[in-house]
Amino acid sequence: MAGVSKVAPTPLLKDELDIVIPTIRNLDFLEMWRPFFEQYHLIIVQDGDPSKVIKVPEGFDYELYNRNDINRILGPKASCISFKDSACRCFGYMVSKKKYIFTIDDDCFVAKDPSGKDINALEQHIKNLLTPSTPFFFNTLYDPYREGADFVRGYPFSLREGIPTAVSHGLWLNIPDYDAPTQLVKPLERNTRFVDAVLTIPKGTLFPMCGMNLAFNRELIGPAMYFGLMGDGQPIGRYDDMWAGWCMKVICDHLGLGVKTGLPYIWHSKASNPFVNLKKEYKGIYWQEELIPFFQSATLPKDCTTVQSCYIELSKQVKAKLGKVDDYFLKLADAMVTWVEAWDELNPSGEKSVEQNGVVAK
Amino acid sequence: MAGVSKVAPTPLLKDELDIVIPTIRNLDFLEMWRPFFEQYHLIIVQDGDPSKVIKVPEGFDYELYNRNDINRILGPKASCISFKDSACRCFGYMVSKKKYIFTIDDDCFVAKDPSGKDINALEQHIKNLLTPSTPFFFNTLYDPYREGADFVRGYPFSLREGIPTAVSHGLWLNIPDYDAPTQLVKPLERNTRFVDAVLTIPKGTLFPMCGMNLAFNRELIGPAMYFGLMGDGQPIGRYDDMWAGWCMKVICDHLGLGVKTGLPYIWHSKASNPFVNLKKEYKGIYWQEELIPFFQSATLPKDCTTVQSCYIELSKQVKAKLGKVDDYFLKLADAMVTWVEAWDELNPSGEKSVEQNGVVAK
Repeated sequence: MAGVSKVAPTPLLKDELDIVIPTIRNLDFLEMWRPFFEQYHLIIVQDGDPSKVIKVPEGFDYELYNRNDINRILGPKASCISFKDSACRCFGYMVSKKKYIFTIDDDCFVAKDPSGKDINALEQHIKNLLTPSTPFFFNTLYDPYREGADFVRGYPFSLREGIPTAVSHGLWLNIPDYDAPTQLVKPLERNTRFVDAVLTIPKGTLFPMCGMNLAFNRELIGPAMYFGLMGDGQPIGRYDDMWAGWCMKVICDHLGLGVKTGLPYIWHSKASNPFVNLKKEYKGIYWQEELIPFFQSATLPKDCTTVQSCYIELSKQVKAKLGKVDDYFLKLADAMVTWVEAWDELNPSGEKSVEQNGVVAK
Repeated sequence: MAGVSKVAPTPLLKDELDIVIPTIRNLDFLEMWRPFFEQYHLIIVQDGDPSKVIKVPEGFDYELYNRNDINRILGPKASCISFKDSACRCFGYMVSKKKYIFTIDDDCFVAKDPSGKDINALEQHIKNLLTPSTPFFFNTLYDPYREGADFVRGYPFSLREGIPTAVSHGLWLNIPDYDAPTQLVKPLERNTRFVDAVLTIPKGTLFPMCGMNLAFNRELIGPAMYFGLMGDGQPIGRYDDMWAGWCMKVICDHLGLGVKTGLPYIWHSKASNPFVNLKKEYKGIYWQEELIPFFQSATLPKDCTTVQSCYIELSKQVKAKLGKVDDYFLKLADAMVTWVEAWDELNPSGEKSVEQNGVVAK
């Protein structure tokens, strides 16, 4: 580019996107993100002891909620929001009034592309969300809407308009998002491979959605982005984003919404303690063997045309079919209902049918 | 690496792989591939006028078949092999006695990776074929068996062994594999994006398989790699590899076999004439709108446990359901049967059930 303008350009979707950050510490990590986040609004969800003061660097526009705020705002329904677990971030999705959400962990820094340039993760997420998805047929040159790419020979023309994108799942350089057993076995493994691709997860295919670096269209899929019951008082942790991802994908497939993964990368700075993680995860590690087949075979009735109605239906199926795996899922199924009720309370005009959103149901 | 050995190492699968090349011209392009192909056996399928002499550079080990050879070897069954179309390459798959096939077009050259190093495409295909596939759940860090990668958090442990890989689909730098309308609209578009990934096409997802740069396990899937009736005397061209890809994928999904796409890249040197291509493709462009839903909903009965029995069953469904699209599909369905008969004639011990191959049917 010839010359650098002294006036920063207005960032994409500046007034339509909130950045949600769950944290237990001072947010020094924001310094590195300043050029990319400073013009956006932040929603900080403080986890753990509400009397602790979280310092936010100067110049950021933010609102901060601690546990007392959550209890005050939601009353008894606050029970659906996890405590002492980053799953609490989903409270931020609920109180946002914006169309788009980007959520990021506070140990994630700006990554560099292979040319050494800082990656504007948020900008890439927005590009992903604003271009369609193609879940019905795989394009071998990946995202056909990127510059320099297109649909290849043999791609049906009737599918080339794609469908609206609900979720953009970004990746991580440096510390990969491994489970505790893999961390223990490969403590030194680092992700150094920059894969320059964005792709749609095909319809009917599940994937492990990580909450570290994630964006979504809140209007299209918000009520399905519940991060479950984790942490304090729960038998499990580190499955919050997975749970949300599986529920969300089943609902997106039903409603004709797309999910992308790939770019952007962030730099994940430090591995969490694998021994602590193992304690949080071990039930999930065997439960997931039953959860995946459950979600793979889950179908939603045709008359579920809103995210809310899909989510309530899914909660019933969780109760009926996963309750026998562990009583925890009975509690989780109830919390799913509470979550949707709380969502609708805070977002009174929020329940839109997919037709209203211009999305064609299958 | 410290130093370069003066003795070339024995290449991977040297005695278990044939390179199949369909051509109408002298094979000067092999000069560029000499370091990578010289120790392998080539099967050259000469298309068009059999009296023309095709020159093969010195030092390559090859067998060459022209139309007279095909007619002599297959007799009346030669009708299933296309003439004046690169679809004739599948004759090479049939006469091979090896376990693996790599097929490449004669306008494909050695590509360079981003560091400027020549890409050994064949070596990458072999790596793809010798490591398992993971079609039942998407791994966000792509091929979990590559160095520096693994399964991410939330990936069910029961699925981490993967399943045998039947097909490795490679990509193209420079001229992308576009259809005629896209070529006409974007005559100057070149693929310059090197995406450093290999991934499994999920179960239930179809993709456009291109025959330019393709490898497969002949023992596992060979009889499904029929490139159909194209070219001389047929109403369609340039859908040979697509047809094979759709049939193959349905059968792989049924038999529990994996299909990968991504690396390796080759350098595709020149775009074919879009006007000529349009003439070949135009029926395919509207037929594919009915073919894709047909293949997406095709299911095979449980007692089809060999590739041959799956393929015969699929030919019946083609006849029953696509015959009404055009009479061409009645002829094609018959040719599919002829193909399998010819395959079994040339490969008398070829029909193995998936159990014999150690593959678990679903």
